[in-house]
Amino acid sequence: MAKLAEGTLSTRALLERARAAAPGVAELSTAEKNGLITKLADALEGAAEAILAANRRDMESTGPEADEAARDRLLLTRDRVAAMAAGVRDVASLPDPVGEVLAEWERPNGLRIRKVRVPLGVVGIIYEARPNVTVDTVALALKTGNAVVLRGSKEAANSNLCLVEIMAGIPGMPEGAIQLLDSSNRDSVRELIEARGLVDVIIPRGGAGLINFVVENSVVPVIETGAGNCHIYVDDAADLDMADEIVINAKTQRPSVCNAAEKLLVHERIAPEYVPRIAAKLREYGVELRGDDAARRLSPPGMMQAATETDWGEEYLRLCMAVRVVSDVEHAIAHINRYSTKHSDSIVTREEGRARRFLRAVDSAAVYWNASTRFSDGAEFGFGAEMGISTQKLHCRGPFALPELTSSKYEIIGSGQIR
Amino acid sequence: MAKLAEGTLSTRALLERARAAAPGVAELSTAEKNGLITKLADALEGAAEAILAANRRDMESTGPEADEAARDRLLLTRDRVAAMAAGVRDVASLPDPVGEVLAEWERPNGLRIRKVRVPLGVVGIIYEARPNVTVDTVALALKTGNAVVLRGSKEAANSNLCLVEIMAGIPGMPEGAIQLLDSSNRDSVRELIEARGLVDVIIPRGGAGLINFVVENSVVPVIETGAGNCHIYVDDAADLDMADEIVINAKTQRPSVCNAAEKLLVHERIAPEYVPRIAAKLREYGVELRGDDAARRLSPPGMMQAATETDWGEEYLRLCMAVRVVSDVEHAIAHINRYSTKHSDSIVTREEGRARRFLRAVDSAAVYWNASTRFSDGAEFGFGAEMGISTQKLHCRGPFALPELTSSKYEIIGSGQIR
Repeated sequence: MAKLAEGTLSTRALLERARAAAPGVAELSTAEKNGLITKLADALEGAAEAILAANRRDMESTGPEADEAARDRLLLTRDRVAAMAAGVRDVASLPDPVGEVLAEWERPNGLRIRKVRVPLGVVGIIYEARPNVTVDTVALALKTGNAVVLRGSKEAANSNLCLVEIMAGIPGMPEGAIQLLDSSNRDSVRELIEARGLVDVIIPRGGAGLINFVVENSVVPVIETGAGNCHIYVDDAADLDMADEIVINAKTQRPSVCNAAEKLLVHERIAPEYVPRIAAKLREYGVELRGDDAARRLSPPGMMQAATETDWGEEYLRLCMAVRVVSDVEHAIAHINRYSTKHSDSIVTREEGRARRFLRAVDSAAVYWNASTRFSDGAEFGFGAEMGISTQKLHCRGPFALPELTSSKYEIIGSGQIR
Repeated sequence: MAKLAEGTLSTRALLERARAAAPGVAELSTAEKNGLITKLADALEGAAEAILAANRRDMESTGPEADEAARDRLLLTRDRVAAMAAGVRDVASLPDPVGEVLAEWERPNGLRIRKVRVPLGVVGIIYEARPNVTVDTVALALKTGNAVVLRGSKEAANSNLCLVEIMAGIPGMPEGAIQLLDSSNRDSVRELIEARGLVDVIIPRGGAGLINFVVENSVVPVIETGAGNCHIYVDDAADLDMADEIVINAKTQRPSVCNAAEKLLVHERIAPEYVPRIAAKLREYGVELRGDDAARRLSPPGMMQAATETDWGEEYLRLCMAVRVVSDVEHAIAHINRYSTKHSDSIVTREEGRARRFLRAVDSAAVYWNASTRFSDGAEFGFGAEMGISTQKLHCRGPFALPELTSSKYEIIGSGQIR
């Protein structure tokens, strides 16, 4: 098994190793990459005991202040290791985007121009506790011909080190292709995001605090991911039974994730009927409710706290929802474009014209008509994998996976042309 | 003519006006946009006298310390105004990328997913003296449905203000769609690049100092453009007459631009013949030469200064070229990947295998086989326009124009689907 340099080499030296490894990774054939990825899945399964032992050390040193959700994110079980390996095998079976000819044409002067997909080079990931991100990221980076630099959290340090040692030790894995930065060194995040020239993209995966820190301080280009303040707008032309299902699903099916709905907007014409009806149902699911004045007046006394300005912009990530009564679809669109994180928003209506207007005018990565926002997800979109959900407009927007971990270059063939 | 707010409103207020204008610009139809662009060209021609008068004020206040090239970049003439208007009309005739369906599919659960091209929103441009950039940028931004914020240089302040007043005053131009920041206020650059949430992308166009400042300090995503340290590698299997033409063209046809060649690498086997031959020719064109030890030994005494480590990374932007003797194509590739700005590099050879190796392994935006690097240009690529040449790997790479001024969104249509 390859000896890892964590703790002995500086962050800078580790980044230089990744940079030096990148050309070798980029030149691997599709068959070589798929072979390595398959071996990687086998190795993870074969080393399940070691992985679980390393994860137990992380779980033991996680203080009692960590909440149940945080402990659950950190925990690995035999089933979860098997699921990680299965996820890796899925990546082997996906098409390889590298080498794809995106465009090809000939100029009147005879120059032949070809735009071809190439690896990005070195991909840097900064993430929080889930150890499965370590494995997913390596598989996706390898498949797209990139070297990868991982900066996980202190809480998962033993799990991540064990996983990376296994993956870097696969026979045939290019030396230096997987670098794990020291999570006990706070400066390693800053050194990573300032390593312009050594790293080609930084992808932060985690809470809003982490993402904002990276976006505000990175000199390396960033793909901003994930913070979600998603809205459901129930129009006066909505099928209210469908609206119930969508609102309850989007809010309660998995409240801790970025595509869960946080805000409910209701057309004023149906609000007298719909607000008390959905409020009662959401309370049955244990959802804490907040509302604007109109929504509160329409609800039984004490059911909704007053929503403040902060509520409209907040990503709760828990069973809490704020309700606002709006005058029409334009009011809903204006509210969403003002407060949303441009992630995922949905309209429930039977009226096609209004739905088309909403789809076009809401400035978010994924806009839905008559469906739950919970579908904003690489697997649900049919991508076979997911690297994250981009909430920026450059490079990629919405759920992204393999093609978005590549760049392109122009190859131009001439016969002596000059200007 | 619309009254402009420059000098009376804060930078922040101007950025907020652009943000507020963006949805209106995004909703313009292709016909509306082309109509505005055509009127814009007419208005520029009609106001040629006023534009030339404003430009004279800029020329007069440009101190004698400005070199001839800088004065030439700033200067507008009647012909140049006509050329600006013609360039604008070309943009009207190009296809509108907005609304293009990039992908569309249905999931097994019946969700219909459509990936559609949409405007970025607000595009910010920071640029140096050329006033034509003001006009080109507005035309390209308008065509792609974006509001635009311009931050030009102090030297061109009168020209830019005059041009923007004309363009913002076109009947039908959405209020606030074109904002010109105060170039006498140094803080306006910093406020622009920190305006996350108000501006969707920053494109710096100018020298390396400007570009580095923006890349290192921007919180808004950046498309890094332009700095070029381009190489020509003359292989031992090259047609040396073709090599002469390409080297001389790439170095001398327009030495002040980013796609001009700055470095010449020569295979050691032909170096004894080729280095003195090309050195003599380049001297005839007035090119100052620098070289490594081997190149200097092969040249007449005194013809080449010693190249230092700094030379290999420098973009001269003038009639100067550094020459290095390399052992083979791999050595050339390694040198280029170490020192180039990943802009444009060319191999001259008759040997296809080596050419293919070079095209693949050189990690630059545009890689040439048997052609001058001077073709890295939107017009030469056939794009009909150019916004810049990206030297980063995210979002776009190489010459870029209309499609790269857009983003995408997912529109998802369901019938009540939940997870």
